[in-house]
Amino acid sequence: MISVLEAQEFVLRNAEKLPVISLKLEDSLGYYLAENCLAPLSLPSFRQSAMDGYAFIHTNETRLKVTGQIQAGDLFTPQLKPGEAVRIFTGAPVPDTADTVVIQEHTTREGDTLIIEKLPLPKANVRPIGEQLTAGALVLKKGHQINEASIGFMAGLGFTEIKVYAKPNVCILTTGNELQERGTPLKPNHIYESNGIMLQNALKRLGISNIQLIKVEDTLEQTSKAVKQALEAADVLLVSGGISVGDFDFVQEAFQNNGINEHFYKVNQKPGKPLWFGTKSDKSVFGLPGNPASSLTCFYAYVLPHLRSRMGSLNPFLNERSAVLTETIKNIHSKTLFLKAGVTGNKITPFTGQASSMLNTYALSNALLLIPEDTEQLNEGDAVTYLDLNF
Amino acid sequence: MISVLEAQEFVLRNAEKLPVISLKLEDSLGYYLAENCLAPLSLPSFRQSAMDGYAFIHTNETRLKVTGQIQAGDLFTPQLKPGEAVRIFTGAPVPDTADTVVIQEHTTREGDTLIIEKLPLPKANVRPIGEQLTAGALVLKKGHQINEASIGFMAGLGFTEIKVYAKPNVCILTTGNELQERGTPLKPNHIYESNGIMLQNALKRLGISNIQLIKVEDTLEQTSKAVKQALEAADVLLVSGGISVGDFDFVQEAFQNNGINEHFYKVNQKPGKPLWFGTKSDKSVFGLPGNPASSLTCFYAYVLPHLRSRMGSLNPFLNERSAVLTETIKNIHSKTLFLKAGVTGNKITPFTGQASSMLNTYALSNALLLIPEDTEQLNEGDAVTYLDLNF
Repeated sequence: MISVLEAQEFVLRNAEKLPVISLKLEDSLGYYLAENCLAPLSLPSFRQSAMDGYAFIHTNETRLKVTGQIQAGDLFTPQLKPGEAVRIFTGAPVPDTADTVVIQEHTTREGDTLIIEKLPLPKANVRPIGEQLTAGALVLKKGHQINEASIGFMAGLGFTEIKVYAKPNVCILTTGNELQERGTPLKPNHIYESNGIMLQNALKRLGISNIQLIKVEDTLEQTSKAVKQALEAADVLLVSGGISVGDFDFVQEAFQNNGINEHFYKVNQKPGKPLWFGTKSDKSVFGLPGNPASSLTCFYAYVLPHLRSRMGSLNPFLNERSAVLTETIKNIHSKTLFLKAGVTGNKITPFTGQASSMLNTYALSNALLLIPEDTEQLNEGDAVTYLDLNF
Repeated sequence: MISVLEAQEFVLRNAEKLPVISLKLEDSLGYYLAENCLAPLSLPSFRQSAMDGYAFIHTNETRLKVTGQIQAGDLFTPQLKPGEAVRIFTGAPVPDTADTVVIQEHTTREGDTLIIEKLPLPKANVRPIGEQLTAGALVLKKGHQINEASIGFMAGLGFTEIKVYAKPNVCILTTGNELQERGTPLKPNHIYESNGIMLQNALKRLGISNIQLIKVEDTLEQTSKAVKQALEAADVLLVSGGISVGDFDFVQEAFQNNGINEHFYKVNQKPGKPLWFGTKSDKSVFGLPGNPASSLTCFYAYVLPHLRSRMGSLNPFLNERSAVLTETIKNIHSKTLFLKAGVTGNKITPFTGQASSMLNTYALSNALLLIPEDTEQLNEGDAVTYLDLNF
């Protein structure tokens, strides 16, 4: 049995990058840049007024003659002589000969005469070419995750398409004869299937939408066949349940039958001990525990960073943060514990109901409290580390 | 001019809830519950084995006769007598007469004879009915934001449809004659339009997809007409630019012409002073500054909490967190400052390049450092508050 850190190393070391694709800028939110992004032009690309006011050649003269006006977007600007001023608006081009803009609140007008009441410093309120950045500068690095600000920024530079890493096609196989589809009354001794839809939505939060969800009958033949078909269609395969050593758990054998290379089975953690991870060329395969909460914990700790890494992320793990523990916790298992918890301000409180079958507390959790395998006890008031479930 | 706190109060106080709609559970990620969710059944709903092993009636006898097996999903279970055991698997129903499951690792088999090597306590490894929750219990409250765990949890309870608050239709109007569409070489004195696509993607991150993006010509007539049409189609109107008092800024007049009730104009903050907010019956209208970074800051501080509140959120603001400042900052303006910043571990560093036209640092920011209007200086090493841009 390997440690959590070893297992996390395995899932990152075996995270082959997905293909590089060209995307329209407007569709790129959440993707990771596959190449450095260089500025194709300077910003601003012309001398721009930063305010509404008057452009002029700096002088101590307080009365100037207004000879015209320039609006943002005007293609041509008047030539300006000493003693003259032009009305100008924010974002408008400053005439070549002018060097300063006085804001309108510091002026009065008498017909065509401008009276400057508070003289600005030379060059005030004029944004020089390249003030924000110069053409050719490295602006966003490979691996950057595209957010709304990057999209606005790249739009301002005129980008229409950008190169990013693709998102994976994922297939989710759910196993277990006790599982029943929703929509009909529950049969005796059955439970409603929940892992598939849960994992599907966890993937959606990562911006992954190409997801196939398949229920597999609990026989070796059917399981092997489903794994084979999934490997043909998907980049990543998540199998929920059937990974233990019970007589009806065929998943491991199905993985072997399909020539999937096992990297590890079982991690020294609670919940989620019977986690399986393997690859076959550029396909990755996770065997997740059937218990819903175990499954979701394994998703956050291993599947999510693996997928993010394949999508090009340089910081694929959930954010680790620190908070103050509100109660004492013993770790009698010498395992790494992931405890569903609520963080308010700088306090963290683990929920009661940590059993691996229990999803109700997970729905309310915004944090996974992390207790390392070699920590036997954490005390009330200790600063502890948690994984932030806002992502 | 009002303070940031007053302005935030205004945008929440005037956040009419959107209509309640019925959604398929699988499509509900990110929505907010519009009613309390009660458990329609107990979990588990039958006595379940928690492990692979053998069910039996607790006894000190160490040799039992194996009379059958029960798989997860079996509709019927055998009756069990003292001295007998049945092979049982995780999730399978425990026979009515049995009270305990011994895990397989603590047993050996000699043909039909089971030898218990380590006797568990009575009732061990049997999940009683309702262990997780009992039918009728309140499981998720109105206002809860649905995540993948809530979806899994509600799926396990058999929910197919749930009641949530709708997401808004949003219209974004961009103003400014200097703005040019991407795709053609930049004309002199023009800039590529970036605010529209930026705001559109910020909305997408909130799960809002019904967005209309319209470029308006800078005349009062066209602006008034566009505002009128947007009010007919959208729940929320975002107007980018044209909100200042320059001769070509027609947005405020267009708002008046359309009978929109002004709640405030101008907030004592930097960037984003010329922010306008109003409503007309259940429609909300924001006049956002044209500078991209100002616009985005106003989005995070006002538009986002307003929208979340309309969508049913009880905690609509971005998370406020604390970190240690790595440098000294003066606030000479007596305004609330929002500074683009990077947080690493528990340290926060504001970026250089805070000018309101600059989006490049915003793309790299994961935090907005908040400096209250009455704070004149923050020192290196101070614990400071920031808004977390992970949302």
